Amino acid sequence: MISVGIIGGTGYTGKYLLEFIKEHKHIADYTIYANKSAGSDLLNIFPELVGVIKNQVIQSVENLSYEHDLYFISLPHGESLKYVPTLLEKGIKVIDLGGDYRLDSKDLYDEWYGFDHTSVNLLSEKVYGLVDIKNDKIKDAKFIANPGCYPTSIQLALIPFLKHFAEKAITISSVSYSGTSGAGKSAKPELLLSELDGNAKAYNVNKHRHQPEIEQELKKYGMNSPFAFTTHLLPIARGIYSTSTIHLNSEISENKIKEIYLNEYEEAKFVRMRDVPPEIRWVANTNFCDINISAKKKTVIITSTIDNLIKGASGQAIQNMNKMFGWDETLGILK
Amino acid sequence: MISVGIIGGTGYTGKYLLEFIKEHKHIADYTIYANKSAGSDLLNIFPELVGVIKNQVIQSVENLSYEHDLYFISLPHGESLKYVPTLLEKGIKVIDLGGDYRLDSKDLYDEWYGFDHTSVNLLSEKVYGLVDIKNDKIKDAKFIANPGCYPTSIQLALIPFLKHFAEKAITISSVSYSGTSGAGKSAKPELLLSELDGNAKAYNVNKHRHQPEIEQELKKYGMNSPFAFTTHLLPIARGIYSTSTIHLNSEISENKIKEIYLNEYEEAKFVRMRDVPPEIRWVANTNFCDINISAKKKTVIITSTIDNLIKGASGQAIQNMNKMFGWDETLGILK
Amino acid sequence: MISVGIIGGTGYTGKYLLEFIKEHKHIADYTIYANKSAGSDLLNIFPELVGVIKNQVIQSVENLSYEHDLYFISLPHGESLKYVPTLLEKGIKVIDLGGDYRLDSKDLYDEWYGFDHTSVNLLSEKVYGLVDIKNDKIKDAKFIANPGCYPTSIQLALIPFLKHFAEKAITISSVSYSGTSGAGKSAKPELLLSELDGNAKAYNVNKHRHQPEIEQELKKYGMNSPFAFTTHLLPIARGIYSTSTIHLNSEISENKIKEIYLNEYEEAKFVRMRDVPPEIRWVANTNFCDINISAKKKTVIITSTIDNLIKGASGQAIQNMNKMFGWDETLGILK
Amino acid sequence: MISVGIIGGTGYTGKYLLEFIKEHKHIADYTIYANKSAGSDLLNIFPELVGVIKNQVIQSVENLSYEHDLYFISLPHGESLKYVPTLLEKGIKVIDLGGDYRLDSKDLYDEWYGFDHTSVNLLSEKVYGLVDIKNDKIKDAKFIANPGCYPTSIQLALIPFLKHFAEKAITISSVSYSGTSGAGKSAKPELLLSELDGNAKAYNVNKHRHQPEIEQELKKYGMNSPFAFTTHLLPIARGIYSTSTIHLNSEISENKIKEIYLNEYEEAKFVRMRDVPPEIRWVANTNFCDINISAKKKTVIITSTIDNLIKGASGQAIQNMNKMFGWDETLGILK
Repeated sequence: MISVGIIGGTGYTGKYLLEFIKEHKHIADYTIYANKSAGSDLLNIFPELVGVIKNQVIQSVENLSYEHDLYFISLPHGESLKYVPTLLEKGIKVIDLGGDYRLDSKDLYDEWYGFDHTSVNLLSEKVYGLVDIKNDKIKDAKFIANPGCYPTSIQLALIPFLKHFAEKAITISSVSYSGTSGAGKSAKPELLLSELDGNAKAYNVNKHRHQPEIEQELKKYGMNSPFAFTTHLLPIARGIYSTSTIHLNSEISENKIKEIYLNEYEEAKFVRMRDVPPEIRWVANTNFCDINISAKKKTVIITSTIDNLIKGASGQAIQNMNKMFGWDETLGILK
Repeated sequence: MISVGIIGGTGYTGKYLLEFIKEHKHIADYTIYANKSAGSDLLNIFPELVGVIKNQVIQSVENLSYEHDLYFISLPHGESLKYVPTLLEKGIKVIDLGGDYRLDSKDLYDEWYGFDHTSVNLLSEKVYGLVDIKNDKIKDAKFIANPGCYPTSIQLALIPFLKHFAEKAITISSVSYSGTSGAGKSAKPELLLSELDGNAKAYNVNKHRHQPEIEQELKKYGMNSPFAFTTHLLPIARGIYSTSTIHLNSEISENKIKEIYLNEYEEAKFVRMRDVPPEIRWVANTNFCDINISAKKKTVIITSTIDNLIKGASGQAIQNMNKMFGWDETLGILK
Repeated sequence: MISVGIIGGTGYTGKYLLEFIKEHKHIADYTIYANKSAGSDLLNIFPELVGVIKNQVIQSVENLSYEHDLYFISLPHGESLKYVPTLLEKGIKVIDLGGDYRLDSKDLYDEWYGFDHTSVNLLSEKVYGLVDIKNDKIKDAKFIANPGCYPTSIQLALIPFLKHFAEKAITISSVSYSGTSGAGKSAKPELLLSELDGNAKAYNVNKHRHQPEIEQELKKYGMNSPFAFTTHLLPIARGIYSTSTIHLNSEISENKIKEIYLNEYEEAKFVRMRDVPPEIRWVANTNFCDINISAKKKTVIITSTIDNLIKGASGQAIQNMNKMFGWDETLGILK
Repeated sequence: MISVGIIGGTGYTGKYLLEFIKEHKHIADYTIYANKSAGSDLLNIFPELVGVIKNQVIQSVENLSYEHDLYFISLPHGESLKYVPTLLEKGIKVIDLGGDYRLDSKDLYDEWYGFDHTSVNLLSEKVYGLVDIKNDKIKDAKFIANPGCYPTSIQLALIPFLKHFAEKAITISSVSYSGTSGAGKSAKPELLLSELDGNAKAYNVNKHRHQPEIEQELKKYGMNSPFAFTTHLLPIARGIYSTSTIHLNSEISENKIKEIYLNEYEEAKFVRMRDVPPEIRWVANTNFCDINISAKKKTVIITSTIDNLIKGASGQAIQNMNKMFGWDETLGILK
């Protein structure tokens, strides 16, 4: 049994960490730390959890204790930097749900995040926790950078292809649509229902911070073709749908590709290969990533979908924790 | 003043033909023909139009008269074939909103529509009415094939690029999301709100009938790179959002591309170039197509959006009519 | 031809005033005044109107000119008070879309609005502009208080009943659901799509400011039974649906009630009596109020629906203007 | 450990029965029976459950076995009648989720359901399973009629009031809004997203079958005032929101009423009294009913909300089962 701290646990991802942790048989207790909400009752922040979890007063992150065995950090960009180095020095395990350590180089932070990274040495120490791809480093990890939501949906869709056919791709283009919860709980006029009802739009075109994350990781699996990535808002709260188009220099049969995916994900409890394009509805409120492959002549279309708050954040974080501690990876997240 | 017949005018596109025609100063009268709804009161089909348009009893298409100067045809695939040849023989003008004459070759109908085309000669006589691209043939046309909804959104986004830079494209990939009204009014379980609330999904991957239409037309503007096209459902009633990714073999500056579009569409009253990615909300219930260009290094992302029922169907049809008859092209559709 | 000023014209109601005015054959020109948006381009505020209306720079309300023949005022509660007295003194006509003058007594403002009314004399001079109920005062009015959105939907549903059967009602209870645009454009967390997707809730229970407005007016038509009113949010942008339950002390036949409504609204161009419960879809984007009557034994259920931004605000305001100036009441608002 | 049969388990309520049963520690196995879907794989019906529950071939209800200890029946009106008498004769326990046995008299079935009830004797033998109201009969029940969705939301909101203050009510009026899943999975045009997006409407006014159910039950708690009930569709898949207006003949303080509710529901694990009007979002995907009381002068407004598929159907059925078998009532349904 371990004790868990959640730093920044009052947003949407915080809620699901709580929901998964409260059912978890290896977690003895947990404490929520936050900035603005410090001093509030947890159940005032999440009235829907009355009768489901016990109340606690939210602690101030300024008085962060170091008494827990594991910390989940779910803070805005640039905020994790303040806590991760000290926690790791004290030998405490950390899973960071933000972007502060996902990239491998200081330069990428300069370019895409616009901040000066203050613990560059940790960029190479972290384990990038794309947990459904076999990776022995996760079970020994002390510090996991939990992947971004879009990157999770796209990498799970593309990595098996790249492992076998990277050199066959002329270009790869991923187009993603996300529910609005990905933008968090803070009130911006463009996220009002009045503005988004019946609406959809692209945003951050050619400048989304998840682009360098995806490219960095896909290159590790052999991608050497040009890659493009465009993000959009869906007029729904939850879910990401990603469509990756691969133009090939020579045909590959659909069956051959499908076989490779079935093989890659044979033991993956949270990746489901589908015979038809998956639906957000199938994965909403779950930790699953559903994937479909369609190949015709020299075009491969791979569609993938996840719940951005679960597989794209809290669910994957719990799955990483389960692996780090050697537990059944489905604990708490397969209901 | 002309008289207009609408064949198949009881679906979603029919409604907007009515709304545009009723305000049109050059249209003296109109008659609605349909199959299943024949004999019904028009205002029972469209209760929202009570007090807006006059009622009429819907005529049976079996007793189609030939007394009108122009017919709009809005029927399921394969049904226009039954009426177009006779109408044209009688010297009557026709605007077909369906797909029966959009493609140029019998073979494409065999492959993509699965029917034996019975008036192949008309495939070369029709004018493809992508009305916002300058085309002198429209004003002299006797028979217009009104473009599909997805093809309209994608062609308006890509044609100016192709006119100038076709040889710079390595690959082009378009990903489109559509509201459900594109699937029409017939009750299918997968189109229930209960199934689509909070949902999104790809469909007809690598087999959508608009793909050959788009490819056929874009090749006329020089496209010789591989092209892919994937369609999705949005959980909203109306609107199409298309994102076209072009991988370049050498950089082109964003400003240069934008200039070409501004020039191309200088006189286009229904195409609006935008400095930020457009929103479906901006074009819903209008005849506009809004377009944004983003270029970075060797990637160009073009986003475009239309109302599938208006610019993607009835609005474009009215605009074609206006041009055919030499009227102000905005009549009835710019409110 | 008149000249029009719009004070506070950059919100949702402002947009529709513009859309109706731009088409209006008796309006020569219009100027927009605002607080925060002063100095901005109108088309930056409403990008959807590019190509539809001409741009103008928004004027500061601090430099309000008095050169127009009519002012529409669409400001938060308590703000109209600052402008109305001076405008009226100068002999200029005013239509106030806010609540500052709808109530008849200072005491009601103390109790429900919590402000000290500074031009109490005007409360009795204003004409309450519920324009679809016959009222000779409107055509001679110099100052109209445009009704609230909920009050419009409920009064049009209940006034004909009360005129004939007020003494038969034991109690009347109205329950209304509104789209979120009624809450305006300012960003509040509870109005985010992330919070409202798939959601609905009551709000301001037993304390909504439209309650005294409705009661005050219904009493003028004889209501002497207890009245209750409860407001809710719908997870859509636009539309109000009101359900009024009347418990009777003795039966009245449904037909008899319906006859009275048909008679009352015989010449009302924007009230449509329906044989089945109306749908928000039928009235969205229109100036109509659709009403259905169902009576069974001693229970009468009256359902009514409007577009909150049009019939419940800007459309009704234009209709009032048309009547004030002796023009066809449908000008600009029946498309 | 018991064995369970689910008759008609392929609709929306069937899905949640499965989800609750699969986790249930006292259920050894379960078999699904259906009509049209017999012979299909369960996981083809519910693709979202791949990886969550084991597949089974759906059995034909024509070959219904009698080997299970308990049957849940979830069939259209008039269909349960065919199975319940035989099951009970064989000493098997039954929980019927449909309406065939909820009413107490044959006459009510003639009037409201329009069928001739063929096992009238069972109407008095059934236990009406409104499980959150203390009722000793449930734990000894052999046959439970599971309450309707609307009736659950309204009875839980009104019964405590009626127990103490029935004689103070002049009239009671309940207005309910439901998500579309309440109408089931069959494809009707008016339930298409294209029709319901941005829409809402009343339906079955003065003739909804849940009205006699509610009245019958509330009278058992002393209601002797006129009662009205009106149902509406929300443009969302799930959730019911009910607003009950009580006009009083003399004031009762809000605190006094609240105290009574807190007392009544002190041990109710699935009823949550709220200080503000509850939101559908708080109860969606849960077995909770959330209730708020607002009293002002002689008006009491009680708002209540449930998930129509869970507390209004499958969740309440499981809770009834738990009580029937003497298990912890939260098993399987408090996650």
